[in-house]
Amino acid sequence: MLTVSAYAATSADGPLEKVGIERRDLGPLDVLIEIKYSGICHSDIHTARNEWGGTHYPVVPGHEIAGVVTAVGSEVTRHRVGDRVGVGCFVDSCGACGACASGDEQYCTKRVVQTYNSRIGDGEYTMGGYSTHIVVTEGFVLSIPDGLALDVAAPLLCAGITLYSPLRHWGAGPGKQVAIIGMGGLGHVGVKIAAALGAEVTVLSQTLSKQDDGLRFGAHHYHATSDPATFKALRSRFDLILNTVSVNLDMDLYMSTLAVNGALVELGLPEKPIRVSGFSLAANRRSLAGSMVGGIAETQEMLNFCAERGIGAEIEVISADRINEAYDRVVRSDVRYRFVIDAGTF
Amino acid sequence: MLTVSAYAATSADGPLEKVGIERRDLGPLDVLIEIKYSGICHSDIHTARNEWGGTHYPVVPGHEIAGVVTAVGSEVTRHRVGDRVGVGCFVDSCGACGACASGDEQYCTKRVVQTYNSRIGDGEYTMGGYSTHIVVTEGFVLSIPDGLALDVAAPLLCAGITLYSPLRHWGAGPGKQVAIIGMGGLGHVGVKIAAALGAEVTVLSQTLSKQDDGLRFGAHHYHATSDPATFKALRSRFDLILNTVSVNLDMDLYMSTLAVNGALVELGLPEKPIRVSGFSLAANRRSLAGSMVGGIAETQEMLNFCAERGIGAEIEVISADRINEAYDRVVRSDVRYRFVIDAGTF
Repeated sequence: MLTVSAYAATSADGPLEKVGIERRDLGPLDVLIEIKYSGICHSDIHTARNEWGGTHYPVVPGHEIAGVVTAVGSEVTRHRVGDRVGVGCFVDSCGACGACASGDEQYCTKRVVQTYNSRIGDGEYTMGGYSTHIVVTEGFVLSIPDGLALDVAAPLLCAGITLYSPLRHWGAGPGKQVAIIGMGGLGHVGVKIAAALGAEVTVLSQTLSKQDDGLRFGAHHYHATSDPATFKALRSRFDLILNTVSVNLDMDLYMSTLAVNGALVELGLPEKPIRVSGFSLAANRRSLAGSMVGGIAETQEMLNFCAERGIGAEIEVISADRINEAYDRVVRSDVRYRFVIDAGTF
Repeated sequence: MLTVSAYAATSADGPLEKVGIERRDLGPLDVLIEIKYSGICHSDIHTARNEWGGTHYPVVPGHEIAGVVTAVGSEVTRHRVGDRVGVGCFVDSCGACGACASGDEQYCTKRVVQTYNSRIGDGEYTMGGYSTHIVVTEGFVLSIPDGLALDVAAPLLCAGITLYSPLRHWGAGPGKQVAIIGMGGLGHVGVKIAAALGAEVTVLSQTLSKQDDGLRFGAHHYHATSDPATFKALRSRFDLILNTVSVNLDMDLYMSTLAVNGALVELGLPEKPIRVSGFSLAANRRSLAGSMVGGIAETQEMLNFCAERGIGAEIEVISADRINEAYDRVVRSDVRYRFVIDAGTF
């Protein structure tokens, strides 16, 4: 066992605090990673504060992990000491079900193990990336290509793949009209990737306050959703809308901007049920869909794509003692665009 | 002008009554059809009773029309006097927009004209198939193949295409698990078509009261949704679920039975908004979609398919003076499985 420093939430309403946690001894297929950067995802906050229910305390959040391999098990072939690697939202799956067989490990029906807060034994739960080290089986460790800095790569492991996977699944590319709702941690990466894939990209944001950034990231259009004229102008426009916002929206209003066969994909997971009219769906044969990160092979594809296109997250690097302050700022959308914790400060 | 007999609703809460209405003189591209049978669709009732709003009285419902051509305009080439023909839910569209160009006239963004209750001029509205005759432009008149009796063909013009189109769009066929929610006017045709397409078909009905019929129509499995064990047993099972029920269901329960990439398609159009959890969608990358009948070419394809496979609706033929009684029976699901009005009695 290796005892390492980490930051944990010990209750739903208390701050995260520095703790010592244990990482397992390396099995033959395990990789020991010295974490360099760990992104802060809104899911971390939902879990730390038990807003989705089911949090087991103490919990060490963090599933946007970038670091360097410092040791490998005896049978590891995919990674070597010194490799630049990443870990995303899950660290194991059954490997045998239909979802695993088709590279959709995130939808494993038997035993997907989340990077944190997943029960893996009697009273034992996975602990995430707000830590100096982590041990992960090699099949769930991604390679971070040269040319992609570890700090801007970290958020790609969740935010990046959360946007990349639905963009690819729903065929974003040349000739397609794609809208991104929300210009936050998820949305800004979605704009960059959708534009790089060749789609015509529109940002739908509450106000125009981030318009300059949006256009710089590759968006072709930017609209304020607080302006009712927006929805009139965009009627039946989009082939694909990715909703990165986690508050409940007036869904019928957004659905009205979908073209024939268009899909609106929920990525932000609002706490309350989504309400949508059957007529909004029937008109234009629209779909309201959901998507959850992406499989391991697709995550590697995304990292390679981002490295080739020079895409990284826009980040603000913080030290570990500022996590609680950062959480409050994420909740009030006061970050451009993703906090990344310098793991040297855990 | 031709004055013909018809049955009209003159208010939201009164009975339908016999009236005289006018059909336009034949234009060069028009076809005059002597209606033989007219199906009763639940949409007729929603409209007659103004349950969806927007009904203009008097309204002559009816968009499941089967009959014989008795006259054609000077430039008509597709149909001849004596041809057996059908008319469905719409009788015109712009012909120029993207939807029309791709054969999805039902999603025409400019000027789709419904068979009834569609405004076509100053105070003038289309009048539907509860009538002895109708005049329709030839491009919106379907051919009913020999071997398909007009009475069992009539409901295919709405119920048939409403099921056939999403079954084809979402790829129902061999190796696919398809569920049909509801074994009514829509559902029973869906079972027949889905089975004929080669899918493995499951009926999800409140009780097992129609199980024998369902299996006879081609279903492989039949489950009562009043039994909680049903949803446990069917977890992550279906690739496609077609919901033909127009009351609001516990959507998350039904969504839980969708496999990875599965879609639940709303066909029944409940009055109240549908409520669904974002987590239900994100898990298994599920979609909640809608679909609205089908295009003209696809409707013809459906009629040809049904004729080849010997598929017709299960019907109860009634005389026009029993329409109001039939409406009440449809509302309480007391029909196996579709009322068809003998147009000789209008």
